[in-house]
Amino acid sequence: MDVVIYLCVFLTAVRPIYSVPRIVDLSYQQDSNTITWPGNPPYNFTQLYRGIYAPYNTWLESNHFAMPEHMGTHVDAPAHLFQGSWKAHQIPIEKLYGPGVIINVKAKVESNPDYRVSTDDLSKYEEKYGEIPRHAVVIMNSGWTQKYSNYTLVYGTAQLQDDTTYHFPSWHEEAVKWLINKRQVNAIGVDTPSTDYGQSRTLPCHVIMGKNNVVGIENVANLDNIPESGSTIYVPVVKIYDGSGGPARLFGTYDDDPDKTNTASTATGSMFYTVFLILAIIIKF
Amino acid sequence: MDVVIYLCVFLTAVRPIYSVPRIVDLSYQQDSNTITWPGNPPYNFTQLYRGIYAPYNTWLESNHFAMPEHMGTHVDAPAHLFQGSWKAHQIPIEKLYGPGVIINVKAKVESNPDYRVSTDDLSKYEEKYGEIPRHAVVIMNSGWTQKYSNYTLVYGTAQLQDDTTYHFPSWHEEAVKWLINKRQVNAIGVDTPSTDYGQSRTLPCHVIMGKNNVVGIENVANLDNIPESGSTIYVPVVKIYDGSGGPARLFGTYDDDPDKTNTASTATGSMFYTVFLILAIIIKF
Repeated sequence: MDVVIYLCVFLTAVRPIYSVPRIVDLSYQQDSNTITWPGNPPYNFTQLYRGIYAPYNTWLESNHFAMPEHMGTHVDAPAHLFQGSWKAHQIPIEKLYGPGVIINVKAKVESNPDYRVSTDDLSKYEEKYGEIPRHAVVIMNSGWTQKYSNYTLVYGTAQLQDDTTYHFPSWHEEAVKWLINKRQVNAIGVDTPSTDYGQSRTLPCHVIMGKNNVVGIENVANLDNIPESGSTIYVPVVKIYDGSGGPARLFGTYDDDPDKTNTASTATGSMFYTVFLILAIIIKF
Repeated sequence: MDVVIYLCVFLTAVRPIYSVPRIVDLSYQQDSNTITWPGNPPYNFTQLYRGIYAPYNTWLESNHFAMPEHMGTHVDAPAHLFQGSWKAHQIPIEKLYGPGVIINVKAKVESNPDYRVSTDDLSKYEEKYGEIPRHAVVIMNSGWTQKYSNYTLVYGTAQLQDDTTYHFPSWHEEAVKWLINKRQVNAIGVDTPSTDYGQSRTLPCHVIMGKNNVVGIENVANLDNIPESGSTIYVPVVKIYDGSGGPARLFGTYDDDPDKTNTASTATGSMFYTVFLILAIIIKF
C-alpha cells in the first residue's frame, strides 16, 4: 500500500512540471478581404506615417483604421438584437471567458449547408466528454473555415445583396435555450458569419442570447487546432463604449494535463486523487 | 513521519479545489475621451442602425468606428519604431501572454513625474518575489491611472501640441535591455501613454523593444487590482494586417493559489513538494 501511496503522491506533485500549457489563436486577421455582413461599410486602413521621423531620428510607422463592429472574428454584444441588454463596454470581463466546448458537426454539414446544431448534438457531446461545465464558451465547428475568405462560398450564394439566398450552418434555437437554461453558458459561437443559420428570417438565437445577456461570437478561426474539451477560451472584445459588439482577438489555452486549464476538470481530477488517497490511508491504518 | 506525508499528500491533492481563479480587466473603454497621442486623428463612432428592423421584426443596433491604432489601452507592435520587425498581424500568439510582473514605482513617481523604472527597481522586485520568469509581461504601475482621462494631467502639460513639455514616467532603457537580455520577457508595458518617458527625445525603449521583437503596451488600466506577482497577463491585440499596433482588451488572471496560473511558480511549487516528499520517503525507509 505504501508504494501505491508514494507513487500517487509523486504523480500528483509532479503533474504541473511535465505539462506544457499551449495557446491557440482563434482569430482571422483584419484586412480589406475579411468577411463582414454584406451591406456593412467596408474596412479602411490608412497610413498616417511611414519613414524616418526627423524629430526622433528613428523609423516610425503608424496607421488609422475604420470598420463596422461586426466584421471578422468578432463579438455580438447582447444589445445587438435585444434593446437594453449589455453593450460591448458593459459585458463583465468574467463573462468573456470560460471552459471551451467545441461541437463538431462537420459530417452533418457536409450534406446540409442549412444544418443547425441540435440538443441531440449536445447530448452526444456530453456522452463523450461529460457534462458541459457552467460558464462555458460553446462554439460550433462546422468546417466552414476552409471557405474563408471567399464571400460566395462563406454565404453559400453569389447574390450577396439578397439574404434570402444565404446558406450556412449555425445553431438551432432549442439548443441555444438548453445551453442557457441547463448549463448557464457565458458565450455561444460559430465558425460561420452568424449565430442564426443563413436561411433564418427572424434570428431567434440572437434574440434569445441577447435577452439572456449571453455573448455571441462569429467567424471563429482555427477550431481544428484546439481540443473539443478541456481548453479555456477567451473572448477579449474591444471595450467600445455604447458598442453593439466589436473585434475580439479570440484565443484558447489548454494543457496536455487538462486539469490545469479547466476548472471543472480540476475539481473532478483532484477529487479523484483525494478520495483515492484517503481510502489508501484508511486501508493502511 | 507518516502523518507529515499524509498531510502533504492531502494538501497537494486538495489545492485546486479550494482555489478560485479570478480575472481582472486591465483596459480603458474606447470613446471620444479615451487618451491617444496628441496629433492623432480623433476617435469616431457612428450609428449604422438603431431601432426595430422590419425584415426581422426585432430590435437591431449596429455601429461603425474609426480610430488610430495607438489609442487607449493598446499594443505597440515591434514594427512601430523598428523597420522590418513584427507588424500587429505577425506577432505570434505565444508572445501575447506571460507571467504578470507589476513594478510598483508610485512612491518614486510622486516626487518625480519624469521617473524612469531602473534596473535597481527590478532587483528590488526580485528580492521580494523571486526571479522574473521567462516570457513575462512586465508592466510599470506608477499610479498614473488616477489622472485618466484628463489630457493635461496625463501628459503633465497644457501644451499638448509641444511634446517637449510632456512629463510622465516610464522605463529607463537600461532596465528594458536587462529585461530583454537577462529575462527574455515577451512584453513591456506602462500605465502612462508611452514606453519612453515624457521628456525622451529619441525613444530608446521603443527602438530597443522593436529591434528585439518585444511587444509594447501603453495606457494599461486597473493595475492596483492585480497581484504584483503570480498572475498571467494576456495582451490580445486586434490582428490588424500591416498594423503598427492596435487596441487590445488587456486582462490578467490569477488564483488564490498562484501555482495554478503562473507556470514558473507551478514548477517551483511542485518541485518543492516533490523534493520534500522524496526526502520524507527516503527518511522513512
